[in-house]
Amino acid sequence: MQPDLLPGHIAASILLQLRTTSPLVHCMTNDVVQSFTANVLLAIGAAPAMVIEAQEAAQFSPVAHALLINIGTLTAERRHAMLAAIHAANESSTPWVLDPVAVGGLAFRTQFAHEVLALKPAVIRGNASEILALASGHSGGRGVDSIDDALSALPAAQALAQRVGTIVVVTGERDYITDGENSWSVAGGGVLMTRVVGTGCALSAVVAACCSLPGSKLDNVAAACQFMKIAGQQAISESRGPGSFIPAFLDALYGLHVEALA
Amino acid sequence: MQPDLLPGHIAASILLQLRTTSPLVHCMTNDVVQSFTANVLLAIGAAPAMVIEAQEAAQFSPVAHALLINIGTLTAERRHAMLAAIHAANESSTPWVLDPVAVGGLAFRTQFAHEVLALKPAVIRGNASEILALASGHSGGRGVDSIDDALSALPAAQALAQRVGTIVVVTGERDYITDGENSWSVAGGGVLMTRVVGTGCALSAVVAACCSLPGSKLDNVAAACQFMKIAGQQAISESRGPGSFIPAFLDALYGLHVEALA
Amino acid sequence: MQPDLLPGHIAASILLQLRTTSPLVHCMTNDVVQSFTANVLLAIGAAPAMVIEAQEAAQFSPVAHALLINIGTLTAERRHAMLAAIHAANESSTPWVLDPVAVGGLAFRTQFAHEVLALKPAVIRGNASEILALASGHSGGRGVDSIDDALSALPAAQALAQRVGTIVVVTGERDYITDGENSWSVAGGGVLMTRVVGTGCALSAVVAACCSLPGSKLDNVAAACQFMKIAGQQAISESRGPGSFIPAFLDALYGLHVEALA
Repeated sequence: MQPDLLPGHIAASILLQLRTTSPLVHCMTNDVVQSFTANVLLAIGAAPAMVIEAQEAAQFSPVAHALLINIGTLTAERRHAMLAAIHAANESSTPWVLDPVAVGGLAFRTQFAHEVLALKPAVIRGNASEILALASGHSGGRGVDSIDDALSALPAAQALAQRVGTIVVVTGERDYITDGENSWSVAGGGVLMTRVVGTGCALSAVVAACCSLPGSKLDNVAAACQFMKIAGQQAISESRGPGSFIPAFLDALYGLHVEALA
Repeated sequence: MQPDLLPGHIAASILLQLRTTSPLVHCMTNDVVQSFTANVLLAIGAAPAMVIEAQEAAQFSPVAHALLINIGTLTAERRHAMLAAIHAANESSTPWVLDPVAVGGLAFRTQFAHEVLALKPAVIRGNASEILALASGHSGGRGVDSIDDALSALPAAQALAQRVGTIVVVTGERDYITDGENSWSVAGGGVLMTRVVGTGCALSAVVAACCSLPGSKLDNVAAACQFMKIAGQQAISESRGPGSFIPAFLDALYGLHVEALA
Repeated sequence: MQPDLLPGHIAASILLQLRTTSPLVHCMTNDVVQSFTANVLLAIGAAPAMVIEAQEAAQFSPVAHALLINIGTLTAERRHAMLAAIHAANESSTPWVLDPVAVGGLAFRTQFAHEVLALKPAVIRGNASEILALASGHSGGRGVDSIDDALSALPAAQALAQRVGTIVVVTGERDYITDGENSWSVAGGGVLMTRVVGTGCALSAVVAACCSLPGSKLDNVAAACQFMKIAGQQAISESRGPGSFIPAFLDALYGLHVEALA
């Protein structure tokens, strides 16, 4: 059974809440997408802060509204700081999001991703290959590409969500958002979004911002996916390639209308 | 008493000098804004170089015309390299600029920022919360946002400038530049500049470039603020959101006319 | 004797092959240009992956089609990881490219660049100052600027290519590509490309992508230079400054026509 599409009026009210509260997102993300991630959060109305030193990260995540852990350029030092931040987040009930970039293929990050599953991320966001690797231990795609279809990973995502007690997002041509029992799907975007580095990583940051909001966490996370799909689709229609897509995408996030969503 | 506006003809002659000499700025800045900072310096006519290994940083800062120290993503290793660079800069009379990102809120960077005050930065550039925290030890804003008004921080900035023997820049809707006795203010820009990551950090880099020029350091630093305000205002008038602002801002810096300033 | 211009039909067939195979490039590059490098590779049709932890880097480079080593922000830790990746690449016959940013001026990176010459890079890509410094041990330019003309460095490039058994690319107003015996030259681009950070670094990544293709390595590397020169020239004609150049350049790379090259 295919999940239902997220209704627009739910996304609209969540966008309103996001803009009203401007959640502060503690981003511990990879070196490649730092600036784009910060600009995406600012454009949509959230507030980014990249704090990476272990002691500071542990001090900061309880102050933030959400914590993002992205393992794209994990190092031994970063691993240490991320664990400190996650533990501090958990002690202060700050929700945290795991983006398990390229998990399955590389031993160091794969071990780390499995280790932090026990620390109960509020949300896990990955492509089909990554979610399949995380759910089953089978080996993932090459780098950050997915060689699997998002829908084909939905059963694994549901099982993972139930086992860990979390929400799992599988992104692709269509995104699937599940807590293991209930699921939403989100359409939109386009293939040009895969020709720009960091759209997936930035989505994980927006997911973090949204999962700090009150209300249904499943709805909030699906709305985050919806915002990015809508802005992506609009930007694609206005751009000539991946270069002009980037400014158009940030402008579209900034200009997202609550009314248009509803 | 409100400070006077920086006269345009002063800014014009400083821009001319900046473009003629193209000062080499050794940037030790945070991970998020590296690329934007380099592009801002290149656009306005200066030359950036990001050298971060401790041994190399100490070797490089005496060769550069100015050194920028930005603590946004301070780590233990980076702290060590920054200290090496500052000491080498001081021994060779290379001016250095401190951008105390989010000082006050986080212990590790706050301790570092206070420690390096004794090493006599030529300029300190921060928002009101940061300058208040640095001047008084009171606790700062959340992340890089300022919850305080720039003008309200001017007395603290003046006191800090006199105590340290430096120039202090408080940025906000209007920027204030003071050496403790004399002050300039600079208007312009707009709120969209706060929706793009790194405009403040990049200003600190331009401040570093300008404070290496001959003439009045106070005028040079105020001119740096002026360049960014003018380019920001022009870019805002030509952009639809934060995405299109970024290229428009770099183009505006590149196209700044000496005549138009005067 | 001046080298011949690379014929367009050679570049055209190499572009076709690049787009068909989408080589996976393991980028170990400097902190400043990560995002731009990834976006350039994606725009032209290759696949970037930035893996930097030593253990992972050694595991990943044999899986990738090519490895890029750029020493722009070398640190002790990064040096260690790069050596692990290079050794693993050599054992699996993965070609690797050296971008010796600012070699000659700074002791730590200069020692490293000379050390890895013995590990036989498939290609070395630098500006005239860097190639002269690497070939002769004389001291290089200031930062990443070149104070020397590309053609003046061609004899040194040829000698270096023969000594190391590699291909050497000297970039400037015109690029020269040599294996010590045969050489190509590539014209195009424009001075605005030097006002944007990372165009040279991104070229080295495209060189890595192309040198993994079958056929003449010299032709493949020259074609990489050609792609960037053509896209740069087109982007310059469509932009008002370095800000609008960046999206226009990525769009131009994305839209490069095989037919137009031929």
